[in-house]
Amino acid sequence: MIKAGIIGATGYAGQELVRILLGHKDVEIKWFGSRSYVDQRFASVFGNFTELVDDLCKSDDLDKLADEVDVIFTATPQGYLAGILTEDILKKAKVVDLSADYRIKDVKKYEEWYGIEHKSPALIKEAVYGLCEVNREDIKKARLIANPGCYPTCSTLSIAPLARRGWIDMNTLIIDAKSGTSGAGRGAKVPNLYCEVNESIKAYAVATHRHTPEIEDQLSYISGKDVRINFTPHLVPMNRGILATSYASLVGEHSEEEIKNAYYEDYKNEYFVRVLDGTTPPETRWVEGSNFVDVNVKYDPRTNRVIMMGAIDNITKGAAGQAVQNMNLLFGLDEKEGLRMVPMVP
Amino acid sequence: MIKAGIIGATGYAGQELVRILLGHKDVEIKWFGSRSYVDQRFASVFGNFTELVDDLCKSDDLDKLADEVDVIFTATPQGYLAGILTEDILKKAKVVDLSADYRIKDVKKYEEWYGIEHKSPALIKEAVYGLCEVNREDIKKARLIANPGCYPTCSTLSIAPLARRGWIDMNTLIIDAKSGTSGAGRGAKVPNLYCEVNESIKAYAVATHRHTPEIEDQLSYISGKDVRINFTPHLVPMNRGILATSYASLVGEHSEEEIKNAYYEDYKNEYFVRVLDGTTPPETRWVEGSNFVDVNVKYDPRTNRVIMMGAIDNITKGAAGQAVQNMNLLFGLDEKEGLRMVPMVP
Amino acid sequence: MIKAGIIGATGYAGQELVRILLGHKDVEIKWFGSRSYVDQRFASVFGNFTELVDDLCKSDDLDKLADEVDVIFTATPQGYLAGILTEDILKKAKVVDLSADYRIKDVKKYEEWYGIEHKSPALIKEAVYGLCEVNREDIKKARLIANPGCYPTCSTLSIAPLARRGWIDMNTLIIDAKSGTSGAGRGAKVPNLYCEVNESIKAYAVATHRHTPEIEDQLSYISGKDVRINFTPHLVPMNRGILATSYASLVGEHSEEEIKNAYYEDYKNEYFVRVLDGTTPPETRWVEGSNFVDVNVKYDPRTNRVIMMGAIDNITKGAAGQAVQNMNLLFGLDEKEGLRMVPMVP
Amino acid sequence: MIKAGIIGATGYAGQELVRILLGHKDVEIKWFGSRSYVDQRFASVFGNFTELVDDLCKSDDLDKLADEVDVIFTATPQGYLAGILTEDILKKAKVVDLSADYRIKDVKKYEEWYGIEHKSPALIKEAVYGLCEVNREDIKKARLIANPGCYPTCSTLSIAPLARRGWIDMNTLIIDAKSGTSGAGRGAKVPNLYCEVNESIKAYAVATHRHTPEIEDQLSYISGKDVRINFTPHLVPMNRGILATSYASLVGEHSEEEIKNAYYEDYKNEYFVRVLDGTTPPETRWVEGSNFVDVNVKYDPRTNRVIMMGAIDNITKGAAGQAVQNMNLLFGLDEKEGLRMVPMVP
Repeated sequence: MIKAGIIGATGYAGQELVRILLGHKDVEIKWFGSRSYVDQRFASVFGNFTELVDDLCKSDDLDKLADEVDVIFTATPQGYLAGILTEDILKKAKVVDLSADYRIKDVKKYEEWYGIEHKSPALIKEAVYGLCEVNREDIKKARLIANPGCYPTCSTLSIAPLARRGWIDMNTLIIDAKSGTSGAGRGAKVPNLYCEVNESIKAYAVATHRHTPEIEDQLSYISGKDVRINFTPHLVPMNRGILATSYASLVGEHSEEEIKNAYYEDYKNEYFVRVLDGTTPPETRWVEGSNFVDVNVKYDPRTNRVIMMGAIDNITKGAAGQAVQNMNLLFGLDEKEGLRMVPMVP
Repeated sequence: MIKAGIIGATGYAGQELVRILLGHKDVEIKWFGSRSYVDQRFASVFGNFTELVDDLCKSDDLDKLADEVDVIFTATPQGYLAGILTEDILKKAKVVDLSADYRIKDVKKYEEWYGIEHKSPALIKEAVYGLCEVNREDIKKARLIANPGCYPTCSTLSIAPLARRGWIDMNTLIIDAKSGTSGAGRGAKVPNLYCEVNESIKAYAVATHRHTPEIEDQLSYISGKDVRINFTPHLVPMNRGILATSYASLVGEHSEEEIKNAYYEDYKNEYFVRVLDGTTPPETRWVEGSNFVDVNVKYDPRTNRVIMMGAIDNITKGAAGQAVQNMNLLFGLDEKEGLRMVPMVP
Repeated sequence: MIKAGIIGATGYAGQELVRILLGHKDVEIKWFGSRSYVDQRFASVFGNFTELVDDLCKSDDLDKLADEVDVIFTATPQGYLAGILTEDILKKAKVVDLSADYRIKDVKKYEEWYGIEHKSPALIKEAVYGLCEVNREDIKKARLIANPGCYPTCSTLSIAPLARRGWIDMNTLIIDAKSGTSGAGRGAKVPNLYCEVNESIKAYAVATHRHTPEIEDQLSYISGKDVRINFTPHLVPMNRGILATSYASLVGEHSEEEIKNAYYEDYKNEYFVRVLDGTTPPETRWVEGSNFVDVNVKYDPRTNRVIMMGAIDNITKGAAGQAVQNMNLLFGLDEKEGLRMVPMVP
Repeated sequence: MIKAGIIGATGYAGQELVRILLGHKDVEIKWFGSRSYVDQRFASVFGNFTELVDDLCKSDDLDKLADEVDVIFTATPQGYLAGILTEDILKKAKVVDLSADYRIKDVKKYEEWYGIEHKSPALIKEAVYGLCEVNREDIKKARLIANPGCYPTCSTLSIAPLARRGWIDMNTLIIDAKSGTSGAGRGAKVPNLYCEVNESIKAYAVATHRHTPEIEDQLSYISGKDVRINFTPHLVPMNRGILATSYASLVGEHSEEEIKNAYYEDYKNEYFVRVLDGTTPPETRWVEGSNFVDVNVKYDPRTNRVIMMGAIDNITKGAAGQAVQNMNLLFGLDEKEGLRMVPMVP
């Protein structure tokens, strides 16, 4: 039995980790970390766990936690883990970090976009970017996983097949993404109140969102080119789900069939990526509560552009689900273990 | 491996049966019945099942189906099953009926409230009302289960402990219930359109809702009294969930603690019923996607009334989940098998 | 031109006052009070007023404000106005108080239910409870209006015709109410976050809600009896709207038609109260954004109870709209002036 | 008093026309046309009009209607008006057509994109495209107005200032738009049911949406170039609102300030277009229920692209509001008459 600890268990991603791990046959959760609710029953914060979890919330003592568990999940604010992670801890437990602290390899770029100093730059190099469908083999050998952001997961996987083949002009790439409100976190802020979000849609962080460099890094790596994109996130009045609609000009001549086949080929062995039939556009509801990524692509001969679409559940494949997928790889388990949740509709 | 067939698989309850049974280790679904979508891929109707279900939808041939499976779930319009069910079919397969056809023992009452003639009254007597927490032993021996309605499940289980003890005046009982929109079904009707339901709440079928006699029958059975209630359902702009808020005058003197203990006592061995701590009121979100019933009770000394509250997911414990719970009992399996889904938040 | 000031202009009720008064031909707003946003542009907080309101938010200086305006609206936390209101201020300007400070005539009762000391009990007697359809003549002569709560407005008006006639047993009265989330205010609290409210319903403040004594007072006044009720509010995932479903036993023999006629009679000259045809139940969407109260009643011969239903927009008739209706009466204007907004659907 | 008739009064745009015209001091509605509800009370279909509209719904007799009114609004399915409109009718009454029948000047293009034959091509030339902020003077002299589509209104107005100046490369233009569900109409179709739309987002009609040629025509006209765009609409779980996020490469060197000033300049006299401060992105909630268009623009030096954003209420400025704005121009009234509704929040 793998022993797991969670730092930040009372955030939306943290509690989703609990939901998933309760159904994982090889894991038991030993530590429900939550600074805000120390000594309160975890199930009193998230009533869905009534009679399923009896534990109290604990503080964030990473050192002590590392002694007691095999794997630590950190669902913490940016900069927090970078400030306390040490070689010592990594010797004792594997770490899957759901924050952005180790996702950007270039420290300077990280510091620019996040506006904070990175306190453990030495560990960045070692960290493996945990996009399983791209870096599976490296993940298996890692100690420290930088679990991908929700937008980068959805964007990268829906663009990768064409980026990899050099069939799209990476200089024309525009990603217009839409997210459910759980992506904004559980902080008590006026803009996240029900009556501020409901019955409205808006773009935010236009041309400045922190996931931009993360997406660019991944697509640069995959395409072998230096990629610069426009990425615009939008806030949608729904709990869960991310939809990314991406546009790029086609390079060379490729039939709609060829283009589609690139997706079938790349994902034929990927359980969690579903290439939809025909021109069916992905809908976030079809993946809700699951670790699936639904993708599709459409070629527009009028403009010679491709429209690439992807849908994920932002707290599952976009956070907690992918974190468990990474854990499974780290510990040599079946990658799907604990992650066979069927999407829930309606 | 138990072979199961579903009639009405493309309704909301039908597809929830599919979601649950895909995770049930002892069952395989052999028949996805759906008159409206015959020969279409089931997953093309409910995209959540993409790459999980390859089957085509089939017609409603109950006879043929009974030859091929061990258990038939019918999620069909009122009167449909009563018109085609026969002794022959019941000899070949067990039937769990999610419609109301066999829930009311008094044919006349059924015909009055439902406004249709009952075509197989002889089978009513045999049918067992499948509220597992009340009729567990009878269910185990049955061939035909009348799976309870969503409102009756939620109402009965939240009132039963006090009704059973005779601690409330059954003549004063008022049930004010609120349901998510999936309870209205998947028919293409204007009143169920997004823009008609969203941002509004209303009562409907005031003093005439068909679940009234079903609730009265169950509470009469449990209390040993002839019960007549007011039951008012409301339509709430959310997908899933039922909340029942019930009121009755207390009979005799019972402290708040005694009252609460009645619930603890009755449900201490019931995995699916969770009696909430203190005065925490149930919220439908805490049971979403699960088979749980959350209940609590509050005594108001100012009026000498008790307020009894219950929350369920209307398509899980209120329909498909309870149907599988019944199936488990029918086949001697662990009652919880396939039903350990942790509620999903947010 | 009447000069108006608003204290608490950046709450949901406060900004609704602004919306309404901008369309009122006899009023100009001179003071947009908001402690939290002093010196910020009001339209930067509520973007709907972009290019419509240029003013900055001001502090809460009631004395100064009273010098500059004819009427003051206070949409402030409980206890705030009672702590600063003086005879002097009332000499200079009329006050319409949207808080509960002057609604309960019995100071002790106020202090018990609200848990705070009342700082200006001397003014309670003078204050007129501003339910226009009940107290119109008194309002016209008042200086200080206690603007009714949202639940009391909806409950009282939907029950009044039968309470007034003594046709219902006031000891059996149960009010089960449902409110949109704007009723919870604009404070940054976790329970009001989008992802905590969306897709769920719950009861709250069961048997302890502060609107209980207010409703009891009004119904006692109207019925001439000492009334004690059960009142249970519920939180509904929608922005605006309150629905009250009330139950009581009929006293004496009255046909359904007679009962309905009581409503027609009492409200035939009330522009803002609409008695719905037949048994059409009120829906909150039909009154959204307007000052209307939609009511209907149904008699259930099976239980000899009446079900009384009412729907309002909680921030309009339940707060800001009624406040303007009161202001119109205070200043001898047409009661409907500025309040002819047609409900907005969908 | 201008007499108005509405064909299609029980659709979402039709009933919004009623809401707006009830508040218009110079208009009275004489004809509530609705094939589906002939002889039923209009207010029984849309309960918001209870006690405000007593009329019954009438059939679609355009000839008879033209005799009785000065202006006809047609909110009808594509192809319907083109099949019955005649010179005779236009001699008797002005027509504001909310369908797409006269929006596309090139009949062939219309027939290709709409898949129907145009039955009155001779009238296309006469029709004036009713985007008031662009074609004001032509509208004033017209008899037949092609009221713009919702997406084209929002897209064109948010792009026009830069298109007009030739500052963006029209070949790089991509419009990613998001719409509330009222845009899908009031037809009883499964995909528009509450439980199918709620808690999900999807793109639809990717690269094939019929508003594409309409937007291209307008932007070609404004820019003097032959424009070909990618336009992708998305369905959002909310009632009202359209947000358009558009991307194009900058041509020449223009500072962020210059770019912003283009908007201020073009819209400084346009009451209904609000250029937002700084980099504030438009939100649909700030325009809900009003005729406003909120726009803003952001330059991204990293990619040399501009992101142009616009928000409207799809049934007001995107349909009924703009139709009334056109009517005001047609009849020489103040363009804002009846359209000063303040956006309603929340």
